[in-house]
Amino acid sequence: MLTVIKFGGSSLATAEKIYNAAAIAWDHKKQGKDVVMVVSARGKSTDELLLQASRIVREPDTRELDVLLSTGEQVSMSLVAMQLISMGVPAVSLCGWQAGILTEDKHNSSRIISIHTERILEELRSGRIVVVAGFQGVDSRGDITTIGRGGSDTSAVALAAALGADECLIYTDVDGVYSADPNMAEGALRHTTLGYDQMLEMASLGAGVLHNRSVELAKSKGVKLSVLSSLSSSGGTEIAPQPMEGSRVSGVICDKKTALLEMFSQGIGDLPDVLQLLAQSGIGADMIISHTGRTGLTVPQNRAKDALRLLLDNADRLGLSSVCADTNVAKLSLVGCGLCSDACVAARMLGALKEQGIHIRSMVAAEIKISVLIPYADAEQGVRGVHREFFGK
Amino acid sequence: MLTVIKFGGSSLATAEKIYNAAAIAWDHKKQGKDVVMVVSARGKSTDELLLQASRIVREPDTRELDVLLSTGEQVSMSLVAMQLISMGVPAVSLCGWQAGILTEDKHNSSRIISIHTERILEELRSGRIVVVAGFQGVDSRGDITTIGRGGSDTSAVALAAALGADECLIYTDVDGVYSADPNMAEGALRHTTLGYDQMLEMASLGAGVLHNRSVELAKSKGVKLSVLSSLSSSGGTEIAPQPMEGSRVSGVICDKKTALLEMFSQGIGDLPDVLQLLAQSGIGADMIISHTGRTGLTVPQNRAKDALRLLLDNADRLGLSSVCADTNVAKLSLVGCGLCSDACVAARMLGALKEQGIHIRSMVAAEIKISVLIPYADAEQGVRGVHREFFGK
Repeated sequence: MLTVIKFGGSSLATAEKIYNAAAIAWDHKKQGKDVVMVVSARGKSTDELLLQASRIVREPDTRELDVLLSTGEQVSMSLVAMQLISMGVPAVSLCGWQAGILTEDKHNSSRIISIHTERILEELRSGRIVVVAGFQGVDSRGDITTIGRGGSDTSAVALAAALGADECLIYTDVDGVYSADPNMAEGALRHTTLGYDQMLEMASLGAGVLHNRSVELAKSKGVKLSVLSSLSSSGGTEIAPQPMEGSRVSGVICDKKTALLEMFSQGIGDLPDVLQLLAQSGIGADMIISHTGRTGLTVPQNRAKDALRLLLDNADRLGLSSVCADTNVAKLSLVGCGLCSDACVAARMLGALKEQGIHIRSMVAAEIKISVLIPYADAEQGVRGVHREFFGK
Repeated sequence: MLTVIKFGGSSLATAEKIYNAAAIAWDHKKQGKDVVMVVSARGKSTDELLLQASRIVREPDTRELDVLLSTGEQVSMSLVAMQLISMGVPAVSLCGWQAGILTEDKHNSSRIISIHTERILEELRSGRIVVVAGFQGVDSRGDITTIGRGGSDTSAVALAAALGADECLIYTDVDGVYSADPNMAEGALRHTTLGYDQMLEMASLGAGVLHNRSVELAKSKGVKLSVLSSLSSSGGTEIAPQPMEGSRVSGVICDKKTALLEMFSQGIGDLPDVLQLLAQSGIGADMIISHTGRTGLTVPQNRAKDALRLLLDNADRLGLSSVCADTNVAKLSLVGCGLCSDACVAARMLGALKEQGIHIRSMVAAEIKISVLIPYADAEQGVRGVHREFFGK
């Protein structure tokens, strides 16, 4: 049996936590499993490396930034391997290039193309726990690449797929995926299982437990994925391949890092051009609504200014008469399955918000999620109200 | 024309110093040279990495320690390359494995076997400054190795030799090699040129400017080596292939990190066994004197306890009746050429020490150096006295 286990930066931040992660890996090994361990950079070390770079240049070259950032995981993996070896557990650490993680020839948010597993398999055969740096790979030229922040989840799932692992366990500081952020809704419930699509929506909407690309990859490769606590052996959420039958609400997610862009146009058919322009600058749009010359969409808050400038610069070509941005909003989403088929769901959600006196700016609904845009200041109250409606507390 | 320039950790410790190093590289480039830049880990970062490891395990696995320590140079090289690129100078950074620096299959103080220069040459052809991580390489298995502390000098010389560079310039915080440590002897003079052998002796004795392995390699490969200041464009010391003619004193070096081991034996012929035993534990011996069953030798101070234990454990086999260690000593050496041929030199040295009232524990003399062991507390006074005798101030 082969297990891929992944530990995030906060689960490796102190010497005690590294010991703890090593002990968990050893436990799996003692159960007779082959163990591949994927690790992120420790605690805030990626931010510290970015700070070092920012002291030298304003906009670092992307190739060199990848060289710099990849040292974060390299530090983690060597410390974890040292810990294991000192406990008498055979272990070896491998960088992305040593683990054969081949990516596209681009930097900063490269995609994994394939994994050449020879070295990992050789180390597993000789009885070692293999500690692999997450977040990084190597391109066809032999240059170091990184696969985007939070990418260690994706590294773990990609390794699990390439190795044909029996399970991929993501260890975090929380013990699973909840129906809402427990900091916002006290009565939040932990899911024991959750469908890929629901997890994907919750991840995309900022549930913060799993990186959405990793869920996407797990779904497409059929990797059995679980979220577990690195601090307690109880709990956990298993991401199940099959969606549940009938309508079921999985959770309430609130994204406060969003901004609303509104634009007016005389012409028609400009929306595809707007979206293409944003996409070319790496700005993802969501909650797209267009009606009689009035278009609204949300973009990540930290890209709102870029998006606004981009659209204003191209206003003539796009036939836009005005564009404005509003960052004073929050996106509250209900995730589940069969949400539209069951008309009650949307009605209950809107009713719960109305009851709280919360004004809704716009709304989009699909089978697996319903999102509404509400005032930023009402975010917490909205989550509590909607959560109470569907989960009774 | 191809130049290899090397910057040590203290020359890269701050953002300003990184800018300065990049500006020097650019200056060489503007003169129409191809430039390969070798960099060490910034400031105290190697010590900080060692500290991180020590918080986790007492004796880290050597393979994993190399993985950890190599991140220090990787951070440096990426920051330097970013700086150059932001100044509009095409540059690319390469880790040891990317630069083709192949070492032995051992860790911590591996030796460079060969350098596969294809990637470096390709980058130079495309007009880039190539920034290479010093101190590190890769073994035949694809594992990261390091070549011992201070090894970046050796990396630079090895690259200069492999690339057939026209010069290898070592930039440091001092502007050359002096006749004595200027902190000890105010009148210390800077050498404009110095023979390889004299530099080698001064480096081995702890002059601290160049790593002795790098000088050895430069001598054997005929690399033209210079020591220059990263802070001022004047000064510098060129290490010349030919020793000077006649007797000439190059400098006075004081090594305070030494210890004297004394042993007594009934038998004979035990000295080779003693030296072999020490060598097997990586303990280098110097100032070896043996006479009628009484043997004295010096070892690095931080290995004195290990050496003492080793000899005591093997006392019976080695025929030693007693062994003792004295760390309260300093090794004062005069380096030059033709020192023994010119009997005056030794006499003048001993006379200068006698004048200061300094007691000499033991002495060994060779053509290129004369070393005496004096009380630790007399080190500075000894350096000043001997320096004044030979350099007049």
